[in-house]
Amino acid sequence: MTNSDAETSRDAIMEATYRVLAEEGYADLTTKAIAEEVGKSTALIHYYYDTKETLLVEFLEYLLDTFREGVERQSGDAPAERLETFLERFVSGPEDPEAFHTAMLDLRTQAPHDAAFREQLRTNDREITDYVADVLAAGIEAGEFREVDPDRVASFLFSALDGARTRWVVTGDDEVLSSAREELRRYLEERVYRDDLESPR
Amino acid sequence: MTNSDAETSRDAIMEATYRVLAEEGYADLTTKAIAEEVGKSTALIHYYYDTKETLLVEFLEYLLDTFREGVERQSGDAPAERLETFLERFVSGPEDPEAFHTAMLDLRTQAPHDAAFREQLRTNDREITDYVADVLAAGIEAGEFREVDPDRVASFLFSALDGARTRWVVTGDDEVLSSAREELRRYLEERVYRDDLESPR
Repeated sequence: MTNSDAETSRDAIMEATYRVLAEEGYADLTTKAIAEEVGKSTALIHYYYDTKETLLVEFLEYLLDTFREGVERQSGDAPAERLETFLERFVSGPEDPEAFHTAMLDLRTQAPHDAAFREQLRTNDREITDYVADVLAAGIEAGEFREVDPDRVASFLFSALDGARTRWVVTGDDEVLSSAREELRRYLEERVYRDDLESPR
Repeated sequence: MTNSDAETSRDAIMEATYRVLAEEGYADLTTKAIAEEVGKSTALIHYYYDTKETLLVEFLEYLLDTFREGVERQSGDAPAERLETFLERFVSGPEDPEAFHTAMLDLRTQAPHDAAFREQLRTNDREITDYVADVLAAGIEAGEFREVDPDRVASFLFSALDGARTRWVVTGDDEVLSSAREELRRYLEERVYRDDLESPR
């Protein structure tokens, strides 16, 4: 097997993991379900990932890569636009967001009981907040944003989005998301964007 | 058994459930562990609660009662003070908050898979946001707060606190909580409290 074949297989396994999580949920994520979804043998899945934990840690890295690719495409946009896109993506997500985010909540809940999960989730959490902090710093540098503390505001924005998503998954109440989206926009207008600038939307 | 005896037993079981959750976690919450903690037989626990689900739904009601008693004691305080106490309580919590909140996250994660849990968690979520919305409305009425949308701001505040708590439990990073606390204070100062009023702390 060449390196490129191996990469293709790993990518296919990650995409299949995503679909199984979104369609069947965390509890039904088995090697067999992934193998069927990817159209390969369970032996191949085991060849790359000897445990479910190893596979899921790599899946978290894969989600982080997807996030990186998304923000990379936006690197030429104005800071306010990058911020708004981040908020939109975070609360809307993939095609079947509720099922996928339910599975993600199940996965994240394992973190306090599993050091490898916690380590990777912490890496993902930090890279995402660092990205938002960088966008905030760029906006301040460009004179478009007020002089807020980028790290603190980034962490706060991420917490508000994360909490809205968790409450939505737990209660099933869509209004939690719309309230968060609307109030976050007001927050940005009053606390982050300079008065003399229009909001980008 | 008189009604009062029954109430004492139920209270004792709820308090024991709390301690088992905080000390041993959700996975180790068994009838046996609760019975040992309360110093009664497992038969008595089964007499009141035929399933773990029934017990945990009542435990969620018990937590809501505790919340109600706390806010009741504050009913004479100024709106800004009630709001700040709510924020403080929400991020600090009981003696061993991390272990307890880890157990609560485990419990909440069951909601999408369990209708009875979801129903009770939704009741708790709504009563808490309604309380915050009432405090906001009282502050607006008293001329101390700006004319924000009480329901939307209440939901947003709750999401930000909830997200900070979840991220803290998942990543183990205390800074998530201090960032949320500090930035929520700024948010209240800039978006909720009127400029001409001092923050209560």
